[in-house]
Amino acid sequence: MTDLPETASAQPASWHPAPQPVRDPSLPARVRVYEVGPRDGLQAEPEILPAPVKAEFCRRLLAAGVPALEVTSFVPPRWIPQLADAEEVVAAVGDAPGRRLVSLVPNLRGLDRALAAGVTEVAVVVSATESFARANLNNTVRGAIDTAASVAAAAADAGVRVRGYVSMSFGDPWEGPVPHERVAGIAAELAGAGAATVALGDTIGTATPAHVERVVGLTADAGVARDALALHLHDTYGQALGNVQAGLRAGIVEFDASTGGLGRCPYAKGATGNLATEDLVWLLHGLGIDTGIDLEQLVRTTQWMTARLGRPLPSRVAAALTAAGVA
Amino acid sequence: MTDLPETASAQPASWHPAPQPVRDPSLPARVRVYEVGPRDGLQAEPEILPAPVKAEFCRRLLAAGVPALEVTSFVPPRWIPQLADAEEVVAAVGDAPGRRLVSLVPNLRGLDRALAAGVTEVAVVVSATESFARANLNNTVRGAIDTAASVAAAAADAGVRVRGYVSMSFGDPWEGPVPHERVAGIAAELAGAGAATVALGDTIGTATPAHVERVVGLTADAGVARDALALHLHDTYGQALGNVQAGLRAGIVEFDASTGGLGRCPYAKGATGNLATEDLVWLLHGLGIDTGIDLEQLVRTTQWMTARLGRPLPSRVAAALTAAGVA
Repeated sequence: MTDLPETASAQPASWHPAPQPVRDPSLPARVRVYEVGPRDGLQAEPEILPAPVKAEFCRRLLAAGVPALEVTSFVPPRWIPQLADAEEVVAAVGDAPGRRLVSLVPNLRGLDRALAAGVTEVAVVVSATESFARANLNNTVRGAIDTAASVAAAAADAGVRVRGYVSMSFGDPWEGPVPHERVAGIAAELAGAGAATVALGDTIGTATPAHVERVVGLTADAGVARDALALHLHDTYGQALGNVQAGLRAGIVEFDASTGGLGRCPYAKGATGNLATEDLVWLLHGLGIDTGIDLEQLVRTTQWMTARLGRPLPSRVAAALTAAGVA
Repeated sequence: MTDLPETASAQPASWHPAPQPVRDPSLPARVRVYEVGPRDGLQAEPEILPAPVKAEFCRRLLAAGVPALEVTSFVPPRWIPQLADAEEVVAAVGDAPGRRLVSLVPNLRGLDRALAAGVTEVAVVVSATESFARANLNNTVRGAIDTAASVAAAAADAGVRVRGYVSMSFGDPWEGPVPHERVAGIAAELAGAGAATVALGDTIGTATPAHVERVVGLTADAGVARDALALHLHDTYGQALGNVQAGLRAGIVEFDASTGGLGRCPYAKGATGNLATEDLVWLLHGLGIDTGIDLEQLVRTTQWMTARLGRPLPSRVAAALTAAGVA
């Protein structure tokens, strides 16, 4: 029988939390983190930040080592007032040699604005469901693909790279389940139209790992190379990192995330939206996978953004490293 | 070119979020959720709830279908004042035919109290590190194993099942990395001493998936059957569900979780501790794995506990289903 301890929760004096990396040789040695905070994150937050703050956010993310960054969206300002200053932000961020700086464009008019601003990569969005196409793209699934294809063709003429999103790839709040084969077919159309990367979007966060493996497998079968696919996962039900792991096993090497977890879930007020970049980077580094990103600098960027917004962001790693006082 | 939509974030009128189950035939068809909220959760929260509230919590969890429940701990009251009413709670919960009702016991004196209270399963704790053994068990690693073995022998004499925890199996806040082989050896000793289940504890949440697979594999090599192993994962860095998925692939069929995510991280003030049962159940059901648990009833239990505590709990599924108004 033991003596009674002085306290049941004695604590270490100081402690620097870190995973204990264990390399799985079946997984890629290097993965690309595609940062969507400035665009997908900020467009879903109620605050409208000034353009210089957005540009500073982008510069801090680049300084932390982010290899690909979605900077803004050239949408009509009345669609998304949060991003009405796309030209100003793109100009203020400037160049970042060796990094991908991407702007979303909803149509040819948006592409024209983006080209005039000097962007070198654009992102287009299509939908796996008619409901989302109608509600958020004011189009049909077919019409949205045709629009994306026309943008991709014009972008190619201008020497600009194209990334395509397939929204609602793993579930839809109007329609519920989304047929796996339909997602694969749409992704293949987007790739065929010239998208160098196709990101499958779990827009509402309902994907689980076997679902991810199934859809990625069918998309590869439909002719899209696995290294041309990306996963855009939301953490609304806490499933995003399990889905990343499934994606890694399925050969995906590009994952979208938002620093701090910036960006809410538009379909469940108060719930989490985008996967937090810090949580993703912690997982990848724990698997011995190189990202080129300095995790603590990323957490300090979240602390900086938290001060701008005046409220905490949902990243668990940012919260824990901040609580431990190590970033 | 599309017309402008009325709004960029039109929403469905009503929506019942759910995963779209995809079965992975390589994973088990049924998994046991081991609920630790009443013991591990409540002992880490600052509030001290009255015994009838704790018993009501247990009854609600059993009504939601939880198959195994850690009810309380027979520790000396001055160690953990939150659980000073173990006898009263055990008596108030009563029997639950077909379910496992477990009480933690730190030593033979605790076992005597538990046996007098009529418990049918006890849990014992050992440590994978000297630092945690000294700080929280006031013992050495060797001494804690010997204590656990003496409890297990006495429990066997009394016809009571024993579950063993190996704390700090995946990292230690004093020592950092924990050798994988040491964890496997301690788990095997605990099984050899009579523990019918051995739970590997990621007490600080730093495990990542390949690390879990490695330690589980070594533990199985050391002679502990995979179906006699459990994983007790913390979500401090958002990694718990990725680690569950790794555990499932490694043949684990029992996972610890705390409804709502009750219980903080004692090593990072303000950070998340236990994996939330709702988030675990969402994953398992999304993988087509049977748990016997009614997820919405679990979320309502979290809502009930939230009202008792007067503040939200960290479960992402509970937050999102509450926000969507479906539970």
